[in-house]
Amino acid sequence: MADRIVLAYSGGLDTSVAVAWLTEKMSAEVVAVTVDVGQGGEDLDVVRQRALACGAAETVVVDVRDQYAERYCMPALLANGLYMDRYPLISALSRPLIAEHLIQVARRTGAGTLAHGCTGKGNDQARFEISLAALGDEMEIIAPTRDTPISRDFAIGFAAERGLPIEASRRSPYSIDQNMWGRTIEAGPLEDTWAAPMPDIWNYTRDPDPAAEPDEVTITFEAGLPTALDDRPVTPREAIEQLNVRAGRHGVGRLDMMEDRLVGIKTRECYEAPGAITLITAHRELESLTLEKELLRYKRGVDQRWAELVYDGLWFSPLKGCLDDFVAGANRVVTGRVRLRLHAGQAVVVGRDGEGSLYDLSLASYGAEDRFDQSQARGFLALWGLPTRLAARRDARLKS
Amino acid sequence: MADRIVLAYSGGLDTSVAVAWLTEKMSAEVVAVTVDVGQGGEDLDVVRQRALACGAAETVVVDVRDQYAERYCMPALLANGLYMDRYPLISALSRPLIAEHLIQVARRTGAGTLAHGCTGKGNDQARFEISLAALGDEMEIIAPTRDTPISRDFAIGFAAERGLPIEASRRSPYSIDQNMWGRTIEAGPLEDTWAAPMPDIWNYTRDPDPAAEPDEVTITFEAGLPTALDDRPVTPREAIEQLNVRAGRHGVGRLDMMEDRLVGIKTRECYEAPGAITLITAHRELESLTLEKELLRYKRGVDQRWAELVYDGLWFSPLKGCLDDFVAGANRVVTGRVRLRLHAGQAVVVGRDGEGSLYDLSLASYGAEDRFDQSQARGFLALWGLPTRLAARRDARLKS
Amino acid sequence: MADRIVLAYSGGLDTSVAVAWLTEKMSAEVVAVTVDVGQGGEDLDVVRQRALACGAAETVVVDVRDQYAERYCMPALLANGLYMDRYPLISALSRPLIAEHLIQVARRTGAGTLAHGCTGKGNDQARFEISLAALGDEMEIIAPTRDTPISRDFAIGFAAERGLPIEASRRSPYSIDQNMWGRTIEAGPLEDTWAAPMPDIWNYTRDPDPAAEPDEVTITFEAGLPTALDDRPVTPREAIEQLNVRAGRHGVGRLDMMEDRLVGIKTRECYEAPGAITLITAHRELESLTLEKELLRYKRGVDQRWAELVYDGLWFSPLKGCLDDFVAGANRVVTGRVRLRLHAGQAVVVGRDGEGSLYDLSLASYGAEDRFDQSQARGFLALWGLPTRLAARRDARLKS
Amino acid sequence: MADRIVLAYSGGLDTSVAVAWLTEKMSAEVVAVTVDVGQGGEDLDVVRQRALACGAAETVVVDVRDQYAERYCMPALLANGLYMDRYPLISALSRPLIAEHLIQVARRTGAGTLAHGCTGKGNDQARFEISLAALGDEMEIIAPTRDTPISRDFAIGFAAERGLPIEASRRSPYSIDQNMWGRTIEAGPLEDTWAAPMPDIWNYTRDPDPAAEPDEVTITFEAGLPTALDDRPVTPREAIEQLNVRAGRHGVGRLDMMEDRLVGIKTRECYEAPGAITLITAHRELESLTLEKELLRYKRGVDQRWAELVYDGLWFSPLKGCLDDFVAGANRVVTGRVRLRLHAGQAVVVGRDGEGSLYDLSLASYGAEDRFDQSQARGFLALWGLPTRLAARRDARLKS
Repeated sequence: MADRIVLAYSGGLDTSVAVAWLTEKMSAEVVAVTVDVGQGGEDLDVVRQRALACGAAETVVVDVRDQYAERYCMPALLANGLYMDRYPLISALSRPLIAEHLIQVARRTGAGTLAHGCTGKGNDQARFEISLAALGDEMEIIAPTRDTPISRDFAIGFAAERGLPIEASRRSPYSIDQNMWGRTIEAGPLEDTWAAPMPDIWNYTRDPDPAAEPDEVTITFEAGLPTALDDRPVTPREAIEQLNVRAGRHGVGRLDMMEDRLVGIKTRECYEAPGAITLITAHRELESLTLEKELLRYKRGVDQRWAELVYDGLWFSPLKGCLDDFVAGANRVVTGRVRLRLHAGQAVVVGRDGEGSLYDLSLASYGAEDRFDQSQARGFLALWGLPTRLAARRDARLKS
Repeated sequence: MADRIVLAYSGGLDTSVAVAWLTEKMSAEVVAVTVDVGQGGEDLDVVRQRALACGAAETVVVDVRDQYAERYCMPALLANGLYMDRYPLISALSRPLIAEHLIQVARRTGAGTLAHGCTGKGNDQARFEISLAALGDEMEIIAPTRDTPISRDFAIGFAAERGLPIEASRRSPYSIDQNMWGRTIEAGPLEDTWAAPMPDIWNYTRDPDPAAEPDEVTITFEAGLPTALDDRPVTPREAIEQLNVRAGRHGVGRLDMMEDRLVGIKTRECYEAPGAITLITAHRELESLTLEKELLRYKRGVDQRWAELVYDGLWFSPLKGCLDDFVAGANRVVTGRVRLRLHAGQAVVVGRDGEGSLYDLSLASYGAEDRFDQSQARGFLALWGLPTRLAARRDARLKS
Repeated sequence: MADRIVLAYSGGLDTSVAVAWLTEKMSAEVVAVTVDVGQGGEDLDVVRQRALACGAAETVVVDVRDQYAERYCMPALLANGLYMDRYPLISALSRPLIAEHLIQVARRTGAGTLAHGCTGKGNDQARFEISLAALGDEMEIIAPTRDTPISRDFAIGFAAERGLPIEASRRSPYSIDQNMWGRTIEAGPLEDTWAAPMPDIWNYTRDPDPAAEPDEVTITFEAGLPTALDDRPVTPREAIEQLNVRAGRHGVGRLDMMEDRLVGIKTRECYEAPGAITLITAHRELESLTLEKELLRYKRGVDQRWAELVYDGLWFSPLKGCLDDFVAGANRVVTGRVRLRLHAGQAVVVGRDGEGSLYDLSLASYGAEDRFDQSQARGFLALWGLPTRLAARRDARLKS
Repeated sequence: MADRIVLAYSGGLDTSVAVAWLTEKMSAEVVAVTVDVGQGGEDLDVVRQRALACGAAETVVVDVRDQYAERYCMPALLANGLYMDRYPLISALSRPLIAEHLIQVARRTGAGTLAHGCTGKGNDQARFEISLAALGDEMEIIAPTRDTPISRDFAIGFAAERGLPIEASRRSPYSIDQNMWGRTIEAGPLEDTWAAPMPDIWNYTRDPDPAAEPDEVTITFEAGLPTALDDRPVTPREAIEQLNVRAGRHGVGRLDMMEDRLVGIKTRECYEAPGAITLITAHRELESLTLEKELLRYKRGVDQRWAELVYDGLWFSPLKGCLDDFVAGANRVVTGRVRLRLHAGQAVVVGRDGEGSLYDLSLASYGAEDRFDQSQARGFLALWGLPTRLAARRDARLKS
């Protein structure tokens, strides 16, 4: 009897050929699973039909957009999740959730093997395989694109030969991945690091139009999570989707950067993430208002490590879990609202306040309301500077 | 015989009254020292004359603009010096250099006391006093504005009564400090954290002009330092000054943020630093191209700590010195060039390459030149993910 | 009507004179609060009588030994709380709990002022005052020994003059503080850093007797907490007290170190903490067995910061709370048992295993049970070493 | 013409069979390189003869004991190099130096291939291969024991069949590696983590002898390096060798621990390193005396990362190099002397002082020489605790 293989199916060339190849060469029944994380684009029913046309024994389409927003994007927001201080972890966040559903389908359908379409030099293979291993230790994992002789030319020929319903013809020169949290563009002409991003790569964002009227938005946060836009309550998914539209209209959230991949190479990546960048910008500012100084300083390091782990495929690692505890704890008081101006490619904070605020006008003001006791400063500075003073004295002694 | 006091003299109301007050009430001979760190504004000869008119026994004006660029701004650039990831340490960098010159003048003139005009709730008192203590342990330090009964009203009356040449009349509602590395604006109406920055606070930057033609600049770096703009050799000071003009024209480098002061309070601060922000943006991108992954990850933490120490007045602390060693070592290979587009309030990197680059097209490319051995990935991922896999297996066992 | 002052009362000279001094000079009613954190020594009823004899209006004695073990010592154990990798935070742990009770008593008795007997160069003033400020922001705090003219000589004279029941005569040359978690000895002849600790300073530990029979103890941990000794269930307090006896008998837990105080000076401190050191030694080993590699590496830094915060008086700071979340999360799986040999001044781990273990004999063994797939190593190392290899190649290019 | 292969040759079974196997199966000329890093044991001339008898085309023996002490052990001492706070990196330090010499011999003899005898689950393969790749990017690397079908049984049979001069019979059940910096014992009965270390595993250390007279030694350091023992000048190598004898006689430096290998598994390891542990103990104490507080706190993290990188095979990585800069800079002032008592398994510091000391008796003392200005404490504490106080006030407000 044929083995069952659960395949993460995107509808593109690689995974479509994989359906046919796994069915044919490995004599397997392929269950093609397509997970809706807000990638938009093609109708998922069309995608499903294509899988069947390629020979899939079964197809599964799951809409996890709310889960994705709540269980993946929101924790990333709490941790201001930016890899290398810039990349909002777009693909890195979606893979573990897709893995969750692959495992669920595999258990339901009695499959013992999982498959994905990643190559051997990207990061997504790690995010899939380590998530799958953590959640379903007993399963086999195969990666036809990486581990088998399916080259791109082979795939195109294979598809053509068998009449698979894929337009292998004029494909984008770029490699693209997208979901609700943002969109990734890489490869092709972007591999020249001196060349400016080509104008045709953007899709979530319009070109910044300086002549356009600025848009102003107020985001309300409770315990670090967005709960209202301009005072209208929103779910996490609504917050992201609405800000994708509003900030995207002003070209907010375009990124062009050199990036360190897990496998040890540097690449050039472009991203657009209007909603994510706007939310993170607002959230960081609210943290500056509400988190105590030493906590804020320490959290920068925690946030960085969190982003590195998630980037490196370690969403389900024990350290990531403990950092989540820290991050959630810190966010308990991140309550307030932030006003931003969306315009000409930037989301600029122009106001912030709220219940969690640690700003105390009576201490900060240089005006009439000032109640800060300046006499404390002299003793404070004497002791704050004492170690440096003693070290300088010692150094002078050592030199003489 | 009267004691000599060396005073850091800016020419403003507080330090002008301090000249007179120290002379009169403490029966001291005041040596007024004005240090040119590129603050622009008034002619320094006018400033000097005002000190004399206020009663200064001696005045000293020193032009340290090149020193400031080379010994203070450049180390800050190597460390991407941004406090709370945003503030480029404008005032924090100038104070230790001013302290150096105060000590020199004090030793030359036989003065045993140093004075500054800082208040007791700001950061500059720490930067002055700890630097002075580190460099001149034997000196006394006094801060008339903080430690004596000179209130602002007292100062205005004192000035009027004695006919001191200061227009104490209609003073800016803001508190301002500026030098070559940028400009600080705080207090007054900015103390309302919900209010957007007032249009009249900016001086180094024009309002972003949508209609303006973008400016493109290529910055060449050697070992982390800017050596040419658009292929024309520059000194550090020239790089800063020219970029202040070019980036300032497009509104680059405006900042509005909540900030944690050393003394434990939060304040709202606005900054403009067109040259500094453009240089740091370019430098960080070149680091992403030239620094090895783990070094780059670690250096983020080092840079953060460096900025905190400098912000907190600890320029001369032993830890700051050791971090400088790390930072300089890391920058040895930060050699290459970065192309930026200056427009509509942003300095955006659009190209980067150079001798120090670690980007290897033959490994990164998905095109014909690809030589990356994908077969290594399987073994890599198996072991990279092994600890997470074993932990997940253990966790399942513990739960069952 | 006289003001009420709640004083942390130890029964020693300083706080006894403080009772009389506050009563007499400040015309206050003093409530003397003595908190039993397992310091042993004098009967607390005798201490209470002395307070009354010195003029206290009211005395309170509270036994918080179980609370102290559970809410203070156990969190310290989870964080392997050792300041500068050595000092188990003995006094630093007890002060915040004493502060809790001072506030309770003050609220109950309607007092608006709190007092402690710390000097101005130690750490305990910070631990008291910051804890008191965090828990009772509205209260006044006074420190007679530090802020008033009560010198030691004055105190002795004052006591003699008024016939206070204190033997100011035969006082130890050392300054001592002790509680269930350990004992601190400083000052006097120990201020000579070249002199070996005097034989008479120890009290919780016997001199290690190499001729004595070693004691072997097995400690069982659940989620990081000791639950049994030699398979007999214990409470946290019993674990500490029993190990103080058993490990103390073999001289375990003596420490002699240079220490950085919060106020910026270095001092020489001796400690003895047989139970604490034995528990921390066992707990760290069990963490090595049960925590995943990256979590263990990261937790070292978290533990260090935790100890610094607690040492520096910041038990109730927001960062400390978030680190507690991290630490507790990490300890969920620290379940197992550790076998130690107590002998000749050392607690040496000689065995460890348990449910939370990540040790997998089939992967670790070089024997017949080996199932580790060595073929994965080649690919792993190729990519693990790739960044270093690329950097070395670039460096060679830069040099040539 | 036969290819030349340079093999790291220890003289043991694995590398001896490798000589014969590489010669025979790969038709190569094997150059057997034996590096003397102070491992003691067999005469190296005997080892060389065995290589020739096994078929080596050429043998090279190099004595690098001084280099090893100076360029590897001393940097480890400056960084207090202890992996997981315990393991002094014995094997991790020797491999990169051996790699240096393999590359030198390969270049001199025109070999294009390097070989080592490590297995695929240990750490030494990483230390060899990444060092070799960094130093000789153009070379091929092979690991017969890991990458070929040479199992231990095959090796014994192969040796017997060909009459190779190896006593494959009486082999230790343990796997052992040793050099001047210490000795590693693992595997066999030690794989049972509950079993106490077997008495027969130790060789560098005697069992602590209760009856023995304690030995007291004074180590003088200049800029972090040992320069004299009991006032007699020593080289780094002499310091290590003499302390191996003196501390080893008292059983100092025995370790038994759970360890996280680079490849993601946990193992149980025993070590003995009397000289290394004594030196590091003394060096850390001298750092506590001479390094400023914040530098000392930060250096703990640097030291930890340094040890992790070296453990993980990244001696030649860019980050390791930058950490070396930091560490060397910090050690400039680590000058003074430390007195230790060696007895009953412990090296205990009993005195420390010296030129680099930051200890100031006039500030630390509670005696007559006290000059600390206690009045500074009140202002210091008010501001030090202010952020915690404001946060507590805010938290109370949020709760109500």
